[in-house]
Amino acid sequence: MTEFRKDPTSNEWILIASQRVKRPTNFIYPKKSKVDVDYVEDCPFCFGNERLTPPEKAVYRNSPESLLWKIRVIPNMFPAVSSERSNESSLIDNFFRTTSGYGFHEVIIESPFHNQTIVKLKISEIELIIRTYLDRFEDLAKDSIKYIMLFKNQGKLAGASINHIHSQIIAVPLISEYVRHKNEIALNYFKKTKRCLYCDINSKELKSEDRILYQNDDFLVFNPYASRYPFETWISPKHHQASFRNISSKEIKTLASILLETMVKIDHGLNNPDFNYLFYSAPIGKENSSHLHWYIQIVPRIHNFGGFEIGTGIYINIQSPEVSAKYLKEI
Amino acid sequence: MTEFRKDPTSNEWILIASQRVKRPTNFIYPKKSKVDVDYVEDCPFCFGNERLTPPEKAVYRNSPESLLWKIRVIPNMFPAVSSERSNESSLIDNFFRTTSGYGFHEVIIESPFHNQTIVKLKISEIELIIRTYLDRFEDLAKDSIKYIMLFKNQGKLAGASINHIHSQIIAVPLISEYVRHKNEIALNYFKKTKRCLYCDINSKELKSEDRILYQNDDFLVFNPYASRYPFETWISPKHHQASFRNISSKEIKTLASILLETMVKIDHGLNNPDFNYLFYSAPIGKENSSHLHWYIQIVPRIHNFGGFEIGTGIYINIQSPEVSAKYLKEI
Repeated sequence: MTEFRKDPTSNEWILIASQRVKRPTNFIYPKKSKVDVDYVEDCPFCFGNERLTPPEKAVYRNSPESLLWKIRVIPNMFPAVSSERSNESSLIDNFFRTTSGYGFHEVIIESPFHNQTIVKLKISEIELIIRTYLDRFEDLAKDSIKYIMLFKNQGKLAGASINHIHSQIIAVPLISEYVRHKNEIALNYFKKTKRCLYCDINSKELKSEDRILYQNDDFLVFNPYASRYPFETWISPKHHQASFRNISSKEIKTLASILLETMVKIDHGLNNPDFNYLFYSAPIGKENSSHLHWYIQIVPRIHNFGGFEIGTGIYINIQSPEVSAKYLKEI
Repeated sequence: MTEFRKDPTSNEWILIASQRVKRPTNFIYPKKSKVDVDYVEDCPFCFGNERLTPPEKAVYRNSPESLLWKIRVIPNMFPAVSSERSNESSLIDNFFRTTSGYGFHEVIIESPFHNQTIVKLKISEIELIIRTYLDRFEDLAKDSIKYIMLFKNQGKLAGASINHIHSQIIAVPLISEYVRHKNEIALNYFKKTKRCLYCDINSKELKSEDRILYQNDDFLVFNPYASRYPFETWISPKHHQASFRNISSKEIKTLASILLETMVKIDHGLNNPDFNYLFYSAPIGKENSSHLHWYIQIVPRIHNFGGFEIGTGIYINIQSPEVSAKYLKEI
């Protein structure tokens, strides 16, 4: 009852070894002590504590006169990349290559209130968050930036250091080897078939049905065939679109609704797990590619991987996506 | 003070963003409640509880008459791969590829006593453990097995479900995309230079000195230039050797001594952190390659990565290997 599955987007093998757990409910998080105050004195992201962060790069309010903001965008206080360009040479020597950590690292504070979570937001609020994501992509797609990754780390196991609801965006002047490799696989697929790999994944998933959570006019939600993680969930545009930057106003609305619905299922089904979500999107300048396709990957962090994954790149997924989908569908 | 470094073994970029923490001591684990009993009634790995596991595949004792064993090798009770071959076709369809999860998954129980840890073992005991690893490689390198990964998951954050000291070995009938890619990079380097990439890494690290922990006649221990994780440590043979299977009896002794010394530094310096170690080795049949080189990677699991790493493959390492090495050297 174990099998290797090949991930068509990375060519990597995944091991589905689902006899290791008996029921999806084995993954449910223990109950957390909930913070239920809307203000915490030393939280730099709370309304009223704006002095604790660098000046904002953008702010969204109900009206220009309103003191209360809805969303604030600030530079990360401990950035992984630096917006100041250095003039140093980009090589230590020919063997150990380095280049300055140029780029932009921002935090999108998604509510003024400390006890807010994504599943308690209204659809209109999630719409504004997605519009903000889009604004940030537009603002950062400049100079020598080649790639932008937008992601949310929610909870300590997912890499977050601050609980207050936020996402992050990192814009870098290079394409990582991992992204280059994935994009090359999609290009080769397109050359062979004249079709987009990710559009084909959508139609194959739709045809098999077993892993589909639901869909609306614009988006498909599923636990992919070669999921690396239990309950890994993708939200993929049904109509070909290489970059998140191509999303329409109408699609922002349908995405907000389906993202909320998906997060509610994961939150209720797994008892508010730590999680990441991330936006894969075409590199800057490749927005009109026929072979690239943006999508959102949601990864509940409910199982720690070990040495086998680090050493081989083969993830052992102890629950099949078919079982994940069946469980989440019924929530 | 942030920089991208290119990992010469994977061509992936790493972000060294060391301003995010102030001191290496920020990484020290909180004190754990220590289990200090040598027997736990329901632990399947404890001496006296052998009936709780499948029959052993190998056992090592001081003498054949001794009831007390020193090391037991058993099949994993929840294997990620199955030693029974199935006759099913290896394809669901041309798009979603699958193949049966054939392979071997074993557990090496490294002490009969529950409260044993690697740093409390004697060098002679670690020698026997390494000999056992080698025996398992030899025994599993058969049939259609193409790759063997030996690894230790110690602690929950490192993916372990049982505390009693053990390692695991998984033998699979395929080469993962990640390993294939790394081995191709090493082959291309060899074609261009007529030298082994990993031998050159050793000499470059020795020359720069900043990241070396120490060495003996046979092995070099260092925090590599493009470390993905804080305190990531490599133990690499100084004389070219593609496969762990090529290790000599003399080298088993020097490896035991240097592995113990390294683990003591990590254990004392970081307060007994959860960790993985893993043995990268040439695929079966490639033991005499000039371009491949086995090594041990030790990864303390002291920092959770987030969505950026999942999405781009670029790891943000919040401590430079130069700082890691300086700290560990002084322990």
